[in-house]
Amino acid sequence: MRRSELQHGVELFYGDGGVTRPAGFEANGISCGIKVNGKKDLCIIYAKNPCTAAAVFTTNKIKAAPVKVSKSHISNKIQAIVCNSGNANSCTGKQGVQDAKQIVKGVSEHFEIPEKSILLASTGVIGVPLPMEAVDYGIIKIKRKLLVENNGKNAADAILSNDTRRKIAYVQLVLGGKKITIGGMAKGSGMINPNMATMLTFLTTDATISSGMMQKALRYAVKHSFNKISIDGQMSTNDSVMLLASGKQGAAAITKKNEDYKLFEYALTELCKQFAIEIVNDGEGVTKVITVTVKGAPGKSEAEQLARIIANSLPVKTAIYGQSADWGRVLQAVGTAPFPIDPEKISVTINGITACENGADSGLSLSEGRQILNKRNVDLLVDLGIGRAKDYVITTDLSYDYIKINSRYI
Amino acid sequence: MRRSELQHGVELFYGDGGVTRPAGFEANGISCGIKVNGKKDLCIIYAKNPCTAAAVFTTNKIKAAPVKVSKSHISNKIQAIVCNSGNANSCTGKQGVQDAKQIVKGVSEHFEIPEKSILLASTGVIGVPLPMEAVDYGIIKIKRKLLVENNGKNAADAILSNDTRRKIAYVQLVLGGKKITIGGMAKGSGMINPNMATMLTFLTTDATISSGMMQKALRYAVKHSFNKISIDGQMSTNDSVMLLASGKQGAAAITKKNEDYKLFEYALTELCKQFAIEIVNDGEGVTKVITVTVKGAPGKSEAEQLARIIANSLPVKTAIYGQSADWGRVLQAVGTAPFPIDPEKISVTINGITACENGADSGLSLSEGRQILNKRNVDLLVDLGIGRAKDYVITTDLSYDYIKINSRYI
Repeated sequence: MRRSELQHGVELFYGDGGVTRPAGFEANGISCGIKVNGKKDLCIIYAKNPCTAAAVFTTNKIKAAPVKVSKSHISNKIQAIVCNSGNANSCTGKQGVQDAKQIVKGVSEHFEIPEKSILLASTGVIGVPLPMEAVDYGIIKIKRKLLVENNGKNAADAILSNDTRRKIAYVQLVLGGKKITIGGMAKGSGMINPNMATMLTFLTTDATISSGMMQKALRYAVKHSFNKISIDGQMSTNDSVMLLASGKQGAAAITKKNEDYKLFEYALTELCKQFAIEIVNDGEGVTKVITVTVKGAPGKSEAEQLARIIANSLPVKTAIYGQSADWGRVLQAVGTAPFPIDPEKISVTINGITACENGADSGLSLSEGRQILNKRNVDLLVDLGIGRAKDYVITTDLSYDYIKINSRYI
Repeated sequence: MRRSELQHGVELFYGDGGVTRPAGFEANGISCGIKVNGKKDLCIIYAKNPCTAAAVFTTNKIKAAPVKVSKSHISNKIQAIVCNSGNANSCTGKQGVQDAKQIVKGVSEHFEIPEKSILLASTGVIGVPLPMEAVDYGIIKIKRKLLVENNGKNAADAILSNDTRRKIAYVQLVLGGKKITIGGMAKGSGMINPNMATMLTFLTTDATISSGMMQKALRYAVKHSFNKISIDGQMSTNDSVMLLASGKQGAAAITKKNEDYKLFEYALTELCKQFAIEIVNDGEGVTKVITVTVKGAPGKSEAEQLARIIANSLPVKTAIYGQSADWGRVLQAVGTAPFPIDPEKISVTINGITACENGADSGLSLSEGRQILNKRNVDLLVDLGIGRAKDYVITTDLSYDYIKINSRYI
């Protein structure tokens, strides 16, 4: 297990421990036959005592059935999050909503908890109805499994799709003299791709916090983590980030923006950043992780907007895949900025080496360019030279393997 | 030579004849050593008598030096368009503008025409100064060549970059009893890519038309042709479409929006559409040409906006490359529309076969899907079912070869 010391005494642990780390939560994952390859495809996070909850859902106007159901339940006290992989239950019409409600009913009966205390999430193939016999059986199976074992790793495995590895981590912090844990598990697959790779993150904590403040903290954390990764500019119909708080450490409740709130928000954000980076790193066909920073911009939102334009440029992504420091492609993307720029003030720096100065060549050779791009992490810095604002977006290159993964069909 | 009869008696000829077809124009192309592979890289379109001119340039905020010079000359009577390939003279700072002016000076001296009567265009590598010795020599060489031969094919060859074939065509129409010709040549390479593939089109006509009406007609034609092709959502620093009118047929001048104007605009638009289709068809790594149509939209601009979002979606492009009728990816893109939609009213039709109805599966099998996509041209129709407006965008798939062409470096 790896461990990092962050600021303000917050510690980040990754590679081990997830949603079951904070007191008050159990979890497990099983295979019930949704995935044809027999891999784990159904998991539950269960809390004996009702939890306060917060969530951020996809802004895609087409929302999968589990998202619709979860949205209608989120204002209640929550006792279970149920997630399946292998089928997104999206674009499945009235049948899809009926199926989602049937899952809620089944979980409610077997776990003896109110229907409104259950949140759902799904990821996988789109437009195909869920195999409900398998799911109904899965609910019974997972109930039995949870009676004998509390296993966050199994749960984390059961939410994966094209991911090549499990994503679990937790942070610890001290709030009002009590050691608090926020744990989580995530899946993505780099490319936000509706057929195979929705972004899902489930978080639990034993802190005590009002649902209003929790929602604030979660929105902030998502904005500064998952919303900073832009891979192909796509957004799935199923994207969900959910957070449950058990209050099991008995710390004083956070009900306003005090010091405790700020520390909680900081720790939650760092945990989400960790998952965002893991999602990008495990992306489909990714060979480079590129941090695009725009500085010298007239405003922060302009900086972010332009960083996103550069990050989504196919010529830029393919050049970096080919290890070419082709700053001309970067400038071409910069020139499509939807706000005034001064072409003769732009500089481009790649991994600390200036490739373009005052909008023109700085004399970097082809082989030097290849040299500085010969690593997995690429820092692409564009200085517009017209303001003082700065922001960034993290993206990936575009490789043969992305095409392979996204064009092949079973 | 192929020929099509269009509406209103307009005839389209393609595969032969270009800018030299209309009376009053000469053209030729040579190799002067800008391209290292010895291919043709410099051409001129020359008119003994000054012509009225119109042009549409890139809206990229970073404009190549030839675009800056041409913009400052376009309001004058024009006698020459000089275009080089192999080097875009873009992001080349003050040196680039100086070099462009030196070309203007050289052409002015050798052809004995005013500097202000010369338009420039360049395409090729970005950020590298033009090899001016080669260009200076090229101007002398092309002057000599033009004295002995008028050859539109050579000119059309000299503007190509990654294109695999020459693009020349012309239309003929009758205006006021006179047979009028509009000829042209184009280059692209499908992917609008600043390092290798700017979109350039040069048009000539022997009609008589005021520069104001010409500009109107050209704007209309560009809007309904080149602006309808969206390949990777990119726009080069060099994109230019230029039109010269010699008035050599002695037809009555078009000075207002009368019947003659409408016919001229129609013929010009059809010619530009032909070039736009040729550019897409000859795109980098293209295996499918996809017409994305959105109907049932609340307004025409919404329809076009959404068609463009779908056309630029990597999951959609890669699915079609893989011959998968994955309507779920289409819906996922539709759901990011920046205007209200009703998910349960959407239908998706691929090559005439319904794949999705009322936002859900219509029962199309994987093998049927593969069958209907087993052709080069794909019609992807999305009906939003909420309005009466309709518009389209033409795009391509995203293949291994696009990555190959755009990531490899010499």
